[in-house]
Amino acid sequence: MPSAQPACPGFKFAGIIAGIKQSGRPDLGLILAEDEVPAAAVFTRNRVRAAPVELSEANVKAGVARAIIVNSGNANACTGDKGVFDAAAMAEYAARSIGCDKKRVLVASTGVIGQPLPIERIVQSTPRLHAAARVDGLDDFVHAIMTTDRFEKRALHLVPLSPKTKARVVGVAKGAGMIAPNMATTLAFLCTDAAVSPKFLRTVLREEVESTFNAISVDGDTSTNDMVAIMASGAAKNKPIDGGDKGKLFRQAVHDVLDELSRQIVRDGEGATHVVTIEVTGAENAETATLVARRIGSSPLCKAAFFGADPNWGRILAAIGNSGVDVDPRKLDVAIGEVEICRKGDGVGHEAEQRAHEVMRRGEYTIRVHLNRGRAQGRHVTCDLTLDYVKLNADYRT
Amino acid sequence: MPSAQPACPGFKFAGIIAGIKQSGRPDLGLILAEDEVPAAAVFTRNRVRAAPVELSEANVKAGVARAIIVNSGNANACTGDKGVFDAAAMAEYAARSIGCDKKRVLVASTGVIGQPLPIERIVQSTPRLHAAARVDGLDDFVHAIMTTDRFEKRALHLVPLSPKTKARVVGVAKGAGMIAPNMATTLAFLCTDAAVSPKFLRTVLREEVESTFNAISVDGDTSTNDMVAIMASGAAKNKPIDGGDKGKLFRQAVHDVLDELSRQIVRDGEGATHVVTIEVTGAENAETATLVARRIGSSPLCKAAFFGADPNWGRILAAIGNSGVDVDPRKLDVAIGEVEICRKGDGVGHEAEQRAHEVMRRGEYTIRVHLNRGRAQGRHVTCDLTLDYVKLNADYRT
Repeated sequence: MPSAQPACPGFKFAGIIAGIKQSGRPDLGLILAEDEVPAAAVFTRNRVRAAPVELSEANVKAGVARAIIVNSGNANACTGDKGVFDAAAMAEYAARSIGCDKKRVLVASTGVIGQPLPIERIVQSTPRLHAAARVDGLDDFVHAIMTTDRFEKRALHLVPLSPKTKARVVGVAKGAGMIAPNMATTLAFLCTDAAVSPKFLRTVLREEVESTFNAISVDGDTSTNDMVAIMASGAAKNKPIDGGDKGKLFRQAVHDVLDELSRQIVRDGEGATHVVTIEVTGAENAETATLVARRIGSSPLCKAAFFGADPNWGRILAAIGNSGVDVDPRKLDVAIGEVEICRKGDGVGHEAEQRAHEVMRRGEYTIRVHLNRGRAQGRHVTCDLTLDYVKLNADYRT
Repeated sequence: MPSAQPACPGFKFAGIIAGIKQSGRPDLGLILAEDEVPAAAVFTRNRVRAAPVELSEANVKAGVARAIIVNSGNANACTGDKGVFDAAAMAEYAARSIGCDKKRVLVASTGVIGQPLPIERIVQSTPRLHAAARVDGLDDFVHAIMTTDRFEKRALHLVPLSPKTKARVVGVAKGAGMIAPNMATTLAFLCTDAAVSPKFLRTVLREEVESTFNAISVDGDTSTNDMVAIMASGAAKNKPIDGGDKGKLFRQAVHDVLDELSRQIVRDGEGATHVVTIEVTGAENAETATLVARRIGSSPLCKAAFFGADPNWGRILAAIGNSGVDVDPRKLDVAIGEVEICRKGDGVGHEAEQRAHEVMRRGEYTIRVHLNRGRAQGRHVTCDLTLDYVKLNADYRT
């Protein structure tokens, strides 16, 4: 990206080294809008929630925000009263430097849990962070939010506002499963220069997260700190989007950005060697289809078979049977990639399994399950359960 | 055991080589009562159920049975119409040889799924199986039902019927998680010489399975073939037990046998190096306590930490938060063995974690979680997630 081009008009970004990470890598990031702008966010459903999650959820209820400050290297989770004060201090000192209401600042943290945040380093670094904010600073920001990520996660889609003008939806994320250093959090931040009503922005984010970030798994656990946020600067000067045809186009762009970011997170799943999309069709409703897909995608036996490229349709059938969804085993069809391996609950044969094995040696493929009970469908994206996953998660702290 | 001593008065047992297993090991077993006796059984909750499960569930509804025939090496699951006919043939030919109603024979199968049962070998071997049945044949039986088990699973508890007479509750089981060869099934068979009413027998089995076999996990999946059955010969000539004080003593013995067998199965979990009991107290009701315990016991992150003997209480808190149970994170206490490592949601410190790490190096230990919300408690027994688990399950078939 040429240095002067804005990542997303109306926003500045920064990422600096505040000294939170022992590695000395960047660990403090900022997204700054030119003014208060519509904002929305969704948060972890884990009942054990970090202090920054509680604070950001309260602040974003206003439907507007000015900035998001993020630290990596420490999750500020399970840190008692000090954690609450520290999250508030992050917002307050950022607001002082920016010159805005502290309630217009969202806060996110990711890293080790159960250890006090070195808040004085963050507070001292905040003016420097603010001063570093640039329209082309997105690269710095994305590096400052990474923990165990092997690669940075970014996506961009355009919203055609008129034959001549297009708005941008830019997204960055971090996360590699809920894993190391203590548990890596999923964080994602989207910015758009489209003008969007706060209410529609919230609706779109909530609904599109369902079929993207809420339809992926690395190990089936959610962290204490997960957060996906979006801000809309309105720099594109369009009439604020509030639904209709423009709403559809905007929704599609948000979906595509979330979908790409969430797949990048699965691909980066600690130890993962395969990304597997599970598509379930022929269900009575979308909810049960998704349940079945998710159950297959979180079965350790299926995930170990994905690692070994073993077309073990018996495990897939058993996982379907464990989903709690009423299915008729004698009606189940299973295909791996383009190869049908199970028809009406019965194996197709050795040759088909051999071809399915070849499909499973690809880095990325789709498993299709047809329940033959209705017309609804659902999806889940997962990775395999590998030796490296166990190694990384058994040995982390000791 | 001396060769003439009956394993359980009123029963004969057999185990022979029928040629189902490629290894040439014993693969066909029989439990035979002297006459029709009270019987009860519980079956897998997986919606995908093997043919023998369907048949046995139908037959055991009568509350009485004469025999149980079990094959290993092939699960007769996902085998279509042929599977249904084959399960019926197993019961029918066993009944012919014994000389009883075919509806009084229960059938169980365990082994590879999705492959047709070599039914002719079983049918041809049935007279030989029947002829081999001996009062001291339990050893032969238990070897004939094993698949990937590294050791046989047996338990015995006594029921004091009077100051002088004691009845026996004898149990055998197989299972090492729902794992190889394709998926290993949990099978358990209990015999007692006590006289017990069919209704009370069923009640006790159902209720005691809840806190034992239904409170363990190796990898969180149930198989297509799981079954736990009990028969009561009445050879002890007591007044049939139907509750009361004798009922309590009988229930305790059944519980203890089921508890021992289920722990032996966890200990044999494929690749397992640690058996971990998770005890949750201070819950609002037993159901939520069990939910929390089960969630910790099936979290891949927690189970990988058990493997590494890592006292990672943050992962335990996150698993609690993922259980769907309403908890207050600021009230959670966690102890590993005798060492408290988390008090009111906050870490106790490095020294405590060091001592907890030493506890976790033991082969077997307990994790105690106090929710501080009520007085109910629940329990789950699990094993660790190890490198060998992934190796065994990735490489099985290809």
